[in-house]
Amino acid sequence: MAWVGFGEAERVFRAGQPREQRLRGGSFPSSHCWGVGPDAEQGWEGGPGRAPGGTLVLSVTTVIEEGGVKMKLTVIDTPGFGDQINNENCWEPIEKYINEQYEKFLKEEVNIARKKRIPDTRVHCCLYFISPTGHSLRPLDLEFMKHLSKVVNIVPIIAKADTMTLEEKMEFKQRVRKELEVNGIEFYPQKEFDEDLEDKTENDKIRQESMPFAVVGSDKEYQVNGKRVLGRKTPWGIIEVENLTHCEFALLRDFVIRTHLQDLKEVTHNIHYETYRARRLNDNGGLPPVSAGTAGSQGTRDACDSPRPPVLVHLDMCPAAPVAPGVCGRA
Amino acid sequence: MAWVGFGEAERVFRAGQPREQRLRGGSFPSSHCWGVGPDAEQGWEGGPGRAPGGTLVLSVTTVIEEGGVKMKLTVIDTPGFGDQINNENCWEPIEKYINEQYEKFLKEEVNIARKKRIPDTRVHCCLYFISPTGHSLRPLDLEFMKHLSKVVNIVPIIAKADTMTLEEKMEFKQRVRKELEVNGIEFYPQKEFDEDLEDKTENDKIRQESMPFAVVGSDKEYQVNGKRVLGRKTPWGIIEVENLTHCEFALLRDFVIRTHLQDLKEVTHNIHYETYRARRLNDNGGLPPVSAGTAGSQGTRDACDSPRPPVLVHLDMCPAAPVAPGVCGRA
Repeated sequence: MAWVGFGEAERVFRAGQPREQRLRGGSFPSSHCWGVGPDAEQGWEGGPGRAPGGTLVLSVTTVIEEGGVKMKLTVIDTPGFGDQINNENCWEPIEKYINEQYEKFLKEEVNIARKKRIPDTRVHCCLYFISPTGHSLRPLDLEFMKHLSKVVNIVPIIAKADTMTLEEKMEFKQRVRKELEVNGIEFYPQKEFDEDLEDKTENDKIRQESMPFAVVGSDKEYQVNGKRVLGRKTPWGIIEVENLTHCEFALLRDFVIRTHLQDLKEVTHNIHYETYRARRLNDNGGLPPVSAGTAGSQGTRDACDSPRPPVLVHLDMCPAAPVAPGVCGRA
Repeated sequence: MAWVGFGEAERVFRAGQPREQRLRGGSFPSSHCWGVGPDAEQGWEGGPGRAPGGTLVLSVTTVIEEGGVKMKLTVIDTPGFGDQINNENCWEPIEKYINEQYEKFLKEEVNIARKKRIPDTRVHCCLYFISPTGHSLRPLDLEFMKHLSKVVNIVPIIAKADTMTLEEKMEFKQRVRKELEVNGIEFYPQKEFDEDLEDKTENDKIRQESMPFAVVGSDKEYQVNGKRVLGRKTPWGIIEVENLTHCEFALLRDFVIRTHLQDLKEVTHNIHYETYRARRLNDNGGLPPVSAGTAGSQGTRDACDSPRPPVLVHLDMCPAAPVAPGVCGRA
């Protein structure tokens, strides 16, 4: 599985934190081991930098382990996304990158002598960070999610939620949900893909109560009541990132890499990739894309006409060992 | 004196707080009495609303009293400023509005039979709110301040500073100062207008240590150690807005309406207005502007060619009684 974070991600994907750390057996990634930042060693085509369009692209891979199952989790961040004076079509490189991964997969899949395990660089989840304005979504938020929700699983998140009181947080979450609904934006888990009543009941709760998760990024470890906790220290108290009364980071983490991990992969494969595949084969008169041109250029022509090159790469997470549904899959 | 706040002002100029409250004698405005918000009763041309260009314009007037001296303080807020997808030239309506106030003043000043006290709607201070990204100024921040610092006293402020740890705040303040310097942006108090060595020593400290003030807006009053304080309540503690170890709001307030009030008015009159006046008279072959055309249109032609109408109005603060320099002026 691979996933990405855009926009206000700086505080959750914390710059300057251990990024390629292998976690101890049985533990989940802690809040800052998902971090990428301006100093990430890895990046697009050999190194981080300012991509055309003004967005920085930074990727980092980490291995996580749960119940003896190792997984490679790749996160790509785009700090600076939406910070230009003119942000028109700034989502296009991201959409293009996502489609290019589908194209790569498709090319491998239609080969006569295809690999037993097709290398999978597809993006399984896009974390979209909303500014904690307390007011409403910005036009850029709506446009981004409107476009991208058609090609990838969007998980909206409120960043820097420590700026809001509990009442403001509840009210803002409610307003964001309402605005997403009014604007016809289907975030993950999408209603139409609930498989049964149990799924529906569980996901309705997430859609109507939890989403968007309001998170706070950790600064470092602090001592609180004799325990070491990840948090942020302010003159009025320590924000404990993994304390559910302070921050919903633990909910988000469990949602993405525990309860909904397998489903994120399935929806990506069965819905988003299938939609891409059907359109590509249709556009090509039913012929496989290998005969239609070189990789990349032809493949994404319909999906994205932007002259801008993609700004996101190295999205990659594949299980080092097969994922046991009983461990990481949805109940 | 009149002044304005743009951008991220929502948390300092708190929506839904007492806004036209007359303060008790001897007290300074408390953190939330400066508030305006989406529910402000007063606004541009008779009411608040979405101005052309997508920026909301809201103004509010309050009377403050210090040492028996009453003053009318008018604040105008533009929530939504910079929130469009394309924000090119979004500062133009603001620049145009500021120039229009100079033009109004000039027209009155050049009259043969002029009023003893010329009505003054000039903007004496522009509070520019910087997002607490912890990284750097956005291109929009730089462009806005680059343009506006030539016509008005810019006081840069870091909004929602509760998102930053003390270390992050110090580092960010330093970085912002550096970026402003590198980009040649002169914020208030401008170096070149220091009148004497005492001024220079005092202002150097402000420029090199205090600016930009990092503030947090209050939510409501809370009980802390038996005292009622303005603050924000979070699960990890109460942020006391007027406690200098939590927030620099009190520094900002004293700076604007106590120590530098008279100087803000003087720099506006002697520098910004004089620059405008000289240009206008030069453009007009030395003739006063009354003979050059109707009010407003001709006057601001050179300053702002934007077809957009101004989005800021009702900026007005004039002393109800003359300001005694010993009370409110600079030492």
